Amino acid sequence: MSKGITSRNDDYSQWYNELVTKADLAEHSAVRGCMVIKPYGYSIWEKMQAALDKMFKDTGHSNAYFPLFIPKSFFSKEASHVEGFAKECAVVTHYRLKNDGNGNIIVDEDAKLEEELIVRPTSETIIWNTYRGWIQSYRDLPILVNQWANVVRWEMRTRLFLRTAEFLWQEGHTAHATAEEAITEAERMLHVYADFAENWMAVPVVKGTKTPNERFAGAIETYCIEALMQDGKALQAGTSHFLGQNFAKAFDVKFTSKEGKLDHVWATSWGVSTRLMGALIMAHSDDAGLVLPPKLAPIQVVIIPIYKSEEDLNRITGKVDGLVKELKARNISVKYDDRDTQRPGFKFAEYELKGVPVRIALGARDLENGTVEIARRDTKEKQTISSENLADHIEQLLEQIQKDIYQKALKFREENITRADTYDEFKKVLDEKAGFVSAHWDGTPETEQRIKEETKATIRCIPIDNPKEDGVCILTGKPSVQRVLFARAY
Amino acid sequence: MSKGITSRNDDYSQWYNELVTKADLAEHSAVRGCMVIKPYGYSIWEKMQAALDKMFKDTGHSNAYFPLFIPKSFFSKEASHVEGFAKECAVVTHYRLKNDGNGNIIVDEDAKLEEELIVRPTSETIIWNTYRGWIQSYRDLPILVNQWANVVRWEMRTRLFLRTAEFLWQEGHTAHATAEEAITEAERMLHVYADFAENWMAVPVVKGTKTPNERFAGAIETYCIEALMQDGKALQAGTSHFLGQNFAKAFDVKFTSKEGKLDHVWATSWGVSTRLMGALIMAHSDDAGLVLPPKLAPIQVVIIPIYKSEEDLNRITGKVDGLVKELKARNISVKYDDRDTQRPGFKFAEYELKGVPVRIALGARDLENGTVEIARRDTKEKQTISSENLADHIEQLLEQIQKDIYQKALKFREENITRADTYDEFKKVLDEKAGFVSAHWDGTPETEQRIKEETKATIRCIPIDNPKEDGVCILTGKPSVQRVLFARAY
Repeated sequence: MSKGITSRNDDYSQWYNELVTKADLAEHSAVRGCMVIKPYGYSIWEKMQAALDKMFKDTGHSNAYFPLFIPKSFFSKEASHVEGFAKECAVVTHYRLKNDGNGNIIVDEDAKLEEELIVRPTSETIIWNTYRGWIQSYRDLPILVNQWANVVRWEMRTRLFLRTAEFLWQEGHTAHATAEEAITEAERMLHVYADFAENWMAVPVVKGTKTPNERFAGAIETYCIEALMQDGKALQAGTSHFLGQNFAKAFDVKFTSKEGKLDHVWATSWGVSTRLMGALIMAHSDDAGLVLPPKLAPIQVVIIPIYKSEEDLNRITGKVDGLVKELKARNISVKYDDRDTQRPGFKFAEYELKGVPVRIALGARDLENGTVEIARRDTKEKQTISSENLADHIEQLLEQIQKDIYQKALKFREENITRADTYDEFKKVLDEKAGFVSAHWDGTPETEQRIKEETKATIRCIPIDNPKEDGVCILTGKPSVQRVLFARAY
Repeated sequence: MSKGITSRNDDYSQWYNELVTKADLAEHSAVRGCMVIKPYGYSIWEKMQAALDKMFKDTGHSNAYFPLFIPKSFFSKEASHVEGFAKECAVVTHYRLKNDGNGNIIVDEDAKLEEELIVRPTSETIIWNTYRGWIQSYRDLPILVNQWANVVRWEMRTRLFLRTAEFLWQEGHTAHATAEEAITEAERMLHVYADFAENWMAVPVVKGTKTPNERFAGAIETYCIEALMQDGKALQAGTSHFLGQNFAKAFDVKFTSKEGKLDHVWATSWGVSTRLMGALIMAHSDDAGLVLPPKLAPIQVVIIPIYKSEEDLNRITGKVDGLVKELKARNISVKYDDRDTQRPGFKFAEYELKGVPVRIALGARDLENGTVEIARRDTKEKQTISSENLADHIEQLLEQIQKDIYQKALKFREENITRADTYDEFKKVLDEKAGFVSAHWDGTPETEQRIKEETKATIRCIPIDNPKEDGVCILTGKPSVQRVLFARAY
């Protein structure tokens, strides 16, 4: 069929690109690096947003909205922050266009801004400048705020969802009276992210901390969740930062404690983005198209009539109407595709491509036999079953599929964490098997950097649940007290 | 109290500004013209979004997301469109900052964009450029897409919510095979907006069309809803545009009809923004603060304990817990404010300021008597009633308040539509009473412009339900066949 896609084995990267566009998830726009998220892709993102938003509110957070633009001077106030973002930001310099008299629309040089504005790549600076006005006393703390927004980082090499100049995300920004409370918050949100990745996206993740090299620009500690894609490359799926007092100091945000002492406020920030769409797609999908976990599937069940005559179709539709009602009453999203312009085989392929978890086919013979044909997208198993108690059966099946998709991804991840004790072993694993490599490292940025240059593998994280273990660094032979996780990554 | 605000009679404009900031709805940011929407204000906006989003989906629309940036050349392709927006747009010219070697962060002139990018003031151009790739045949139509996004219009005079350089909105962009279908869509969305304004915001609106002078840049017809604020000024609360084939022609978007003919596609666009927050605030609130219709109130019921001893508080809390559960089971959002740091009078004033529709006070004596004191925010009526079937009572009361707030606003609006048959009468009404003035106009842009210059009143709309009536223009005495609505406006 015309919508066929390259297989994963032939070219994983090409498979991904074709899948994203052919399944109507997203496409490149006319603006370099910026994507268009198409309705089907956006409806998955909306489901992610709704689940995350509820989790944020259940943990006491409120949403707010801060400006798109950041004055250049704000940006420069936190030294490592500007260092991290200056090289890739969109700069607004003028506020008017004009007609040059020859019919050309040009920038009006009379409308030059006194101070350039940066399109936010992240909002710590503008938010902490605002918090200065919100915080005087310990009674004003904590502030637990989240923002859903677009941000811009001028990436040179972009890929749909995974790395785009503009992307959508949420960024939480919290303010606390003590370091302990801020650290607890940063860790809490890491667990929220892991919970979301595993229980909604069905993507198992390793929770850990980043090495200083890989930390967020301005953070004291960066927590992260790391997922493994089917090609053995890792993907950072979310980060949560303990920012210490760095931004409070840069923006002079102080509070009076219960004891009457003046101190700078402690901060966290945490975010996940439309990058999660990339993770979702790459973790589960196959050569026939998307595989979506039921909890995030815009259409959970599709029903396709198999008929030769109008009369058959009417009888099938009569039967289907009742089922649709029953499913909707259980909050299962269902689509009955009775288009007469396409044949069943075409429809089957289309919903496979789009990752609909359960497909029901129903023909005239099924009506006589009191059966339906039911197919799972994830395993491609087909079964003819009784149409009695069908809604019950489907509800259970969707739960089972959600679990199975997770278990499959978990098994793959477990099989692809390999221990390596020498540098040769390490390189062999990376080249022949990929996945996470658990290895000893001497703790220095120099060693980390050399390994990255020589193998393209980075330290994805120092897992939180790491057992201590004496060993020697794979590169330098220096002593190490724990293994860390390396991988090549998106 | 410190949170007291200027009265409407003393200075309506000042009253509004103070209310917005003191009720924690929004504040000015460090970026000229851009606002910060604070958590309480944002939670009202979220309720608006949720209601509108459901209405859009119920009428067959899906959400999608298009780029923030628009290439300058796109912008210029539709002549009247660029004319309308060029004078107030933020222009991105560079994509990198650098350190100048002396510790200053400056724009990197080596990173100048080949073509400037405009931060979207509205997205017709980028979307129609995208639709070219989505539409070949009548089978691809209609496209019914909406986007929730931020947009930027570099306004010189800004006011929180009413006119800001950056604002949040939704913009629907639909594509159709026929002019009739597109007009039907534009009218459908006008009715959706009116329904939302009246049934959710409790703000009555006049539905009408704009005169050519006031049309959206690039539209054939602009439909609008116009609301009346308490100071007698009108506010445009939403617009829906029939764009004809203008954008399809500018971006070469054609389709093959059922009959095999190639034709340009027909378009609509429609939007409402955070400006609605300004309308909501100004339509209902009073000198004590916000008055919110229950359907949009983040907190619908607040319960305040009146106690002298810890023991009393515990007994009150025991009683309140049950009520809170009952209310939550009915999807009523309720807050029990048992803070011991503030006195009841302070709390009363605070929730008045924030517009909580129903306040319940409960003291030790009430427990003995089986009563509660219940106060309505809108009318300030207080009543001591039996605590039996209280949840039922509150549910009905919230519905009643929603209706009453609308009726009050409707009565005010009806009393403030005045007919004027001469220019003197017209000016007198504007100066002494304000509100809408229903008057005859000769239909020319010149007359409209002169009336605007002389009186600051504009034609808000030509009402859709207008009866035909022969008359003469108030300014020129030329013949007219219908009255139009004039007003000074926000």
